[in-house]
Amino acid sequence: MVHVRKNIPRCSDDLIERFRSVSAATVHEAMGRRGALDCAIKPLAPGMKLCGRAITVSAHPADNVMLIRAISLARKNDVVVMNAGSILHAGSFGEVLACECEARGMGGLVTSGSVRDSEGICRMGFPVFSAGVSIRGTAKAMLGQVNFPLAMGDVVVNPGDIVLGDDDGVVVVPLAEAEDVLEASLARNAKEAQVMERLRAGESLYDVYGYAAVLERLGCVEED
Amino acid sequence: MVHVRKNIPRCSDDLIERFRSVSAATVHEAMGRRGALDCAIKPLAPGMKLCGRAITVSAHPADNVMLIRAISLARKNDVVVMNAGSILHAGSFGEVLACECEARGMGGLVTSGSVRDSEGICRMGFPVFSAGVSIRGTAKAMLGQVNFPLAMGDVVVNPGDIVLGDDDGVVVVPLAEAEDVLEASLARNAKEAQVMERLRAGESLYDVYGYAAVLERLGCVEED
Amino acid sequence: MVHVRKNIPRCSDDLIERFRSVSAATVHEAMGRRGALDCAIKPLAPGMKLCGRAITVSAHPADNVMLIRAISLARKNDVVVMNAGSILHAGSFGEVLACECEARGMGGLVTSGSVRDSEGICRMGFPVFSAGVSIRGTAKAMLGQVNFPLAMGDVVVNPGDIVLGDDDGVVVVPLAEAEDVLEASLARNAKEAQVMERLRAGESLYDVYGYAAVLERLGCVEED
Amino acid sequence: MVHVRKNIPRCSDDLIERFRSVSAATVHEAMGRRGALDCAIKPLAPGMKLCGRAITVSAHPADNVMLIRAISLARKNDVVVMNAGSILHAGSFGEVLACECEARGMGGLVTSGSVRDSEGICRMGFPVFSAGVSIRGTAKAMLGQVNFPLAMGDVVVNPGDIVLGDDDGVVVVPLAEAEDVLEASLARNAKEAQVMERLRAGESLYDVYGYAAVLERLGCVEED
Amino acid sequence: MVHVRKNIPRCSDDLIERFRSVSAATVHEAMGRRGALDCAIKPLAPGMKLCGRAITVSAHPADNVMLIRAISLARKNDVVVMNAGSILHAGSFGEVLACECEARGMGGLVTSGSVRDSEGICRMGFPVFSAGVSIRGTAKAMLGQVNFPLAMGDVVVNPGDIVLGDDDGVVVVPLAEAEDVLEASLARNAKEAQVMERLRAGESLYDVYGYAAVLERLGCVEED
Amino acid sequence: MVHVRKNIPRCSDDLIERFRSVSAATVHEAMGRRGALDCAIKPLAPGMKLCGRAITVSAHPADNVMLIRAISLARKNDVVVMNAGSILHAGSFGEVLACECEARGMGGLVTSGSVRDSEGICRMGFPVFSAGVSIRGTAKAMLGQVNFPLAMGDVVVNPGDIVLGDDDGVVVVPLAEAEDVLEASLARNAKEAQVMERLRAGESLYDVYGYAAVLERLGCVEED
Repeated sequence: MVHVRKNIPRCSDDLIERFRSVSAATVHEAMGRRGALDCAIKPLAPGMKLCGRAITVSAHPADNVMLIRAISLARKNDVVVMNAGSILHAGSFGEVLACECEARGMGGLVTSGSVRDSEGICRMGFPVFSAGVSIRGTAKAMLGQVNFPLAMGDVVVNPGDIVLGDDDGVVVVPLAEAEDVLEASLARNAKEAQVMERLRAGESLYDVYGYAAVLERLGCVEED
Repeated sequence: MVHVRKNIPRCSDDLIERFRSVSAATVHEAMGRRGALDCAIKPLAPGMKLCGRAITVSAHPADNVMLIRAISLARKNDVVVMNAGSILHAGSFGEVLACECEARGMGGLVTSGSVRDSEGICRMGFPVFSAGVSIRGTAKAMLGQVNFPLAMGDVVVNPGDIVLGDDDGVVVVPLAEAEDVLEASLARNAKEAQVMERLRAGESLYDVYGYAAVLERLGCVEED
Repeated sequence: MVHVRKNIPRCSDDLIERFRSVSAATVHEAMGRRGALDCAIKPLAPGMKLCGRAITVSAHPADNVMLIRAISLARKNDVVVMNAGSILHAGSFGEVLACECEARGMGGLVTSGSVRDSEGICRMGFPVFSAGVSIRGTAKAMLGQVNFPLAMGDVVVNPGDIVLGDDDGVVVVPLAEAEDVLEASLARNAKEAQVMERLRAGESLYDVYGYAAVLERLGCVEED
Repeated sequence: MVHVRKNIPRCSDDLIERFRSVSAATVHEAMGRRGALDCAIKPLAPGMKLCGRAITVSAHPADNVMLIRAISLARKNDVVVMNAGSILHAGSFGEVLACECEARGMGGLVTSGSVRDSEGICRMGFPVFSAGVSIRGTAKAMLGQVNFPLAMGDVVVNPGDIVLGDDDGVVVVPLAEAEDVLEASLARNAKEAQVMERLRAGESLYDVYGYAAVLERLGCVEED
Repeated sequence: MVHVRKNIPRCSDDLIERFRSVSAATVHEAMGRRGALDCAIKPLAPGMKLCGRAITVSAHPADNVMLIRAISLARKNDVVVMNAGSILHAGSFGEVLACECEARGMGGLVTSGSVRDSEGICRMGFPVFSAGVSIRGTAKAMLGQVNFPLAMGDVVVNPGDIVLGDDDGVVVVPLAEAEDVLEASLARNAKEAQVMERLRAGESLYDVYGYAAVLERLGCVEED
Repeated sequence: MVHVRKNIPRCSDDLIERFRSVSAATVHEAMGRRGALDCAIKPLAPGMKLCGRAITVSAHPADNVMLIRAISLARKNDVVVMNAGSILHAGSFGEVLACECEARGMGGLVTSGSVRDSEGICRMGFPVFSAGVSIRGTAKAMLGQVNFPLAMGDVVVNPGDIVLGDDDGVVVVPLAEAEDVLEASLARNAKEAQVMERLRAGESLYDVYGYAAVLERLGCVEED
């Protein structure tokens, strides 16, 4: 059994840059409502944005030895995505590791668990998305896996997938679909801008999209 | 069975304006400790304040077709209050609908569930109080009810009730009691200002309110 | 049975001041990974820092009469640490009590439950760490204990212990170990500064700490 | 302000008896998917069944004085439905009160909180549906309301409504709709029996209800 | 720093036997509503009863090496009480250890976390109270403490304290108070038996305890 | 984009039968502590056992149209494994579908969400593992996927994998590893039987496995 794969497929940095112009929620809709991680995973500070290629880590709860190994393999614009269980009582990532991530030019870190040294990390500005913040430290005693297909809630993340995060949470785009999803996201943005223009002018979304017909089909009864 | 009532009783805009000077916690105390919604419902950004008349929505979890209908019926200073279950994994309200709400001059939105496009909504400044933020979208396939008496945790909200929200959460005031509650709230504020003056001068709340007598009656034993 | 002890052992204000230079996470590590309170207990606003001597309060859920008594006994640099159960639906501390705490020069307040008037408290700047914010008020009808050994999750807090809080949460240091722990914390800070220097220069934590040996001992298999 | 109404509208005992033949889930479907209480509210022991007319109680968390008053007003086939907040750390109902309920011939008790003496209650067989079990006792210090419209999660319960509970949870039927809902429930049972007969004979629900057409309309793509 | 204390104060087996005749809820009330552990800690199977002297264990989450050490020190009628954090995703105790516990004549095991092999343990009948059941195993890499004062939620457990558990949960009695608490519990049982006799004869608890006076003092308003 | 794959790789029924002799916890350990689903997923009734080949379903929360399609494709000893989000407020599977499952000879059903008609299903004896029970029904309006690699918490389930469930929860074995894992599980059982024999004879696990050496290496200090 292999525990660590040292390499991942890496898309161009240009593609990463272009993904920075769209939001996580837009991408989720544009790819058919897939790819959104659990809504408990949030940016460490409001306004943080994360974008890059997934390095996947499967870790034993409250143990960060695989995470340290994964970061040592990361390059510019890589993003570590770690499933360490839904255990918030141990911070497996802190200021020291954030310092290494920044030195490597990484795009961010996503974990199902907690981190610590949140003040230092926020001052640094390195994008970290976690389900919690905890003072408590972790062990270095249990193996996991690096760069294998990773389950994160109801999403499968593959090494090299595009990971995008903002205040709404994190979405993951399969590498093979990345160009198509980006295009669909931009188209969606354009369409929404038009709709919002009409709403500002006094129309209702109910009328713009013709939801009266939907309600009628469902048998909706209205009265004044 | 009727699903949508198009109209609600609407108090004067002046009453809404006067409610803006009191806090949700004060109103809750002033009306005999009633009306507070679940403490999981919080402003999307610290400092957001919400005030207006309730338009009530009962929705199937992860379905926003009734919400869209309700917003299309809203006027200036109306606030949509929606029970969509305690399901945080679907954002039934986003930037596009917030745009319509703002165009209508609405006073805010309250939901037991999640919203999305939080960054855009916060930039807009439209007051949104929810139990979560989620990227995931919703269906448009299940009927609910608009402008019927609505259960929100342990509070019954009636269409036209006054809804008030700040960093502490949301409180709902029955329309018939609104003037009395406002008066009692202002009186409470005045009294608390006096107490705080005494505390700043060195007294303790324990002495100001004579809690020694309460503890004595409960049989409290003290030692140095 | 005694309910209230009026006095606690009080270390020097100087020791309190010196603890302000270290973080909660560092102290936790420096004392052998002990003393961290439940990660649900967070500052009311990001950036709040708390430091002082513990006045301990054990309270019935949704009842704040013991808290009011405890605050009346507090002095400069004292911090009330209260276990009121893990019940977030009642705010047992608000702006009025915060006003008294500030007048007494207290170092902060920590509660396992909720507080209210969060906006007013944040404006005042008084450091409050709680597990929630709730509009709902509390009763004054049930006895508890003040200044007895207090269980807070999996930490025993004794009156007079040093309490330290920041964005990562709260850590408690037994009074007898305080000087040693402070020294070890400062030493840890110095060492971490050196490590971070090496990481910024391009090394990995994996190499700096020699974790390859750890992974090898655990039987880790790698491939390119 | 009135706190206690001593009487409720009481349907015939015969109607209560007839409701015993249908399940909570069937009733929920038959009345258009309304009336189901929070799924956290479960029978104290598997197999318990509850049926009767609602006496509603709104109580301060961890205080049972209003519950004691409500039970003293109950008659044969009445069911107390209490919202005591979603606080599981206090058992406001135990063996002694169950003893009184049984003596009165009550139909059961439903609470959003916890109960205690679960072994004794189960031995007695009195139907209790709660969200938890807790050793901890309650105060008798805070007013609430008895027999007013009650919010239970997203359901409004009115005094006199029919309350039905089994292993799936609790459903509430508005008194005015009770006969219609019962009839629709029985019809639904008959129809489901026919469908199950066909399934046992080898058909699939997918075919019986023609869901292929639904999937086709949604754009579903299949491959072997 | 010491990690393991091999001995605890041990009361007589006779005292343990006498405690078997009272329930956890009764003991909690009889000692002034103290000592109840978190209501999430439940018997592995309904009907399990636990009684004995506390051996205390403080463990790193998802690590059971200290538990194994503690069990090796246990004697007849000892009960291990372990705080392993509120992490349910790792079962630190299973059939093999239960086998050792039974061979030693231990009185049971209490943990804030999860256990596994629940079917085998239940078949054996060894009393286990936990907050969850999980398949996942634990590491053996982190030190904790055995037989030191232990925080369990809001209760401090000292080695040698009496631990009592039934379907309602677990209560802990300080060793020094054990005889008094037992006596008060038996007296309470006798009194409750009398009250229940009156309730069965048709009286209400409301009248038996004179709660009309309490409601009147609180300002309760009633109407027919 | 394809939504439904009609076929899965199917191992022999004989392999399924042989897996029935080992427990989920044993298999988890035997395959290197992998494959355990979230501990919230439990049998509907204690003692239920589940074994079979995975048919995977990814569903929109509170929508069961994909589940109905998946069941229509199932054969003898197949087990549907569905991720419908961690939303417990909607029961997407009930007695009618259980009736079809049984007619097909299926091995069980696993869902991250809730089911209903629990009494009827338990009477039938069909093995159902879910995270909850809820009265509420579901929509039939949103596409998902059938028989694609499925993320379930931190486990990736592939169509055709072996799924095993008992009172401890559910474990998933990749099809390619199934024979090896079964063999290792049986070997583990044999070894544990020997260890339990020694424990019954008076030895401690601490001595049998030589954990004194582990504690010594960790720097454990003991005192009498």
